[in-house]
Amino acid sequence: MEYPSKLIENAVNQIAKLPGIGKKTALRLVLHLIKDKEENTLALAEALTTLRMQIKFCTTCHNISDHDICSICQSHRRDRALLCVVEDSKDVMAIENTAQYNGTYHVLGGVISPMNGVGPADLNIESLVQRLQGQIEIKEVILALSPTMEGDTTAFYINRRIKDLSLKISVIARGVPVGGDLEYADEITLGRSIIGRTLFG
Amino acid sequence: MEYPSKLIENAVNQIAKLPGIGKKTALRLVLHLIKDKEENTLALAEALTTLRMQIKFCTTCHNISDHDICSICQSHRRDRALLCVVEDSKDVMAIENTAQYNGTYHVLGGVISPMNGVGPADLNIESLVQRLQGQIEIKEVILALSPTMEGDTTAFYINRRIKDLSLKISVIARGVPVGGDLEYADEITLGRSIIGRTLFG
Repeated sequence: MEYPSKLIENAVNQIAKLPGIGKKTALRLVLHLIKDKEENTLALAEALTTLRMQIKFCTTCHNISDHDICSICQSHRRDRALLCVVEDSKDVMAIENTAQYNGTYHVLGGVISPMNGVGPADLNIESLVQRLQGQIEIKEVILALSPTMEGDTTAFYINRRIKDLSLKISVIARGVPVGGDLEYADEITLGRSIIGRTLFG
Repeated sequence: MEYPSKLIENAVNQIAKLPGIGKKTALRLVLHLIKDKEENTLALAEALTTLRMQIKFCTTCHNISDHDICSICQSHRRDRALLCVVEDSKDVMAIENTAQYNGTYHVLGGVISPMNGVGPADLNIESLVQRLQGQIEIKEVILALSPTMEGDTTAFYINRRIKDLSLKISVIARGVPVGGDLEYADEITLGRSIIGRTLFG
């Protein structure tokens, strides 16, 4: 594609670097921005710059935060006996959205994935172990990782590192999704849902 | 959705203002930017700002341009006897991409659409008429507007304004798309393709 302007070409290339956005979509967005009010583009650029320059990560749980300690870690209403270990901040938001959990979190920043060159040292696992060692507040660690090979590997690794700390270690339930039709569940999920069955009512 | 940070919330809201991007996609992009190198986000913000502040429109054809006169209008290799009237810059790019046209352009900046409150005065129609009046260079005006109600209305209006200027006025061919299966063409398109049939070979 020939662009009528270097400015357009540069903006398209920058936007097309974002995941899931190709050059055609990028061009559509750029042409929208040109037609739109100038202040909207400037506000967008400003929001991105401030985001990247000022964003912090909670020094306790590594979740995204506006301050050194995030609002969940600071809150006096959260149950400090429960610690939920998740892959990233998106998972914290998803669990918070369920309104079913009132404990605290620990964000790993990824999962162990030899294929992508991510080892335990690249994740916030050491800080999790340190957070759990020699404390009496946290009673249960909930491993809420994705039910994938990488998630399972990470859960096994964390379990090995913390199993001697006399804590209850649990994993989130695996089974058929609520609202999903049984016949569309794959055999592994269905099998796990039978093995992990609970008492009715 | 509760966001863990005001910065995230602001960036998500700004990105979600773009057409075709919802809050979920916006959040995915924001989390990507946070993980990505800082310089990438700053380069993106910079590209958007420069785009909006420095972009120009050709004073002759109203196409997007880096200069006061666009590269097509400046070029000595273009056939100045042909003038192609299009809705916006995207159409110029699409036609340029075909490599089948070597004339010049006139970008209207939209089509007449009473539903959206766009009248002839909101478009670059007056400047088209002025460009065609009292000149001898342009021999043919090609109306390359979308085959929609609005496009047709705009074409009729332009035709009425310039039909006395002793110019050849043409419209782009309508028919079955190349590579498309005949049975999937709608009846109006198929009907037009029969009415507008051309000699074989």
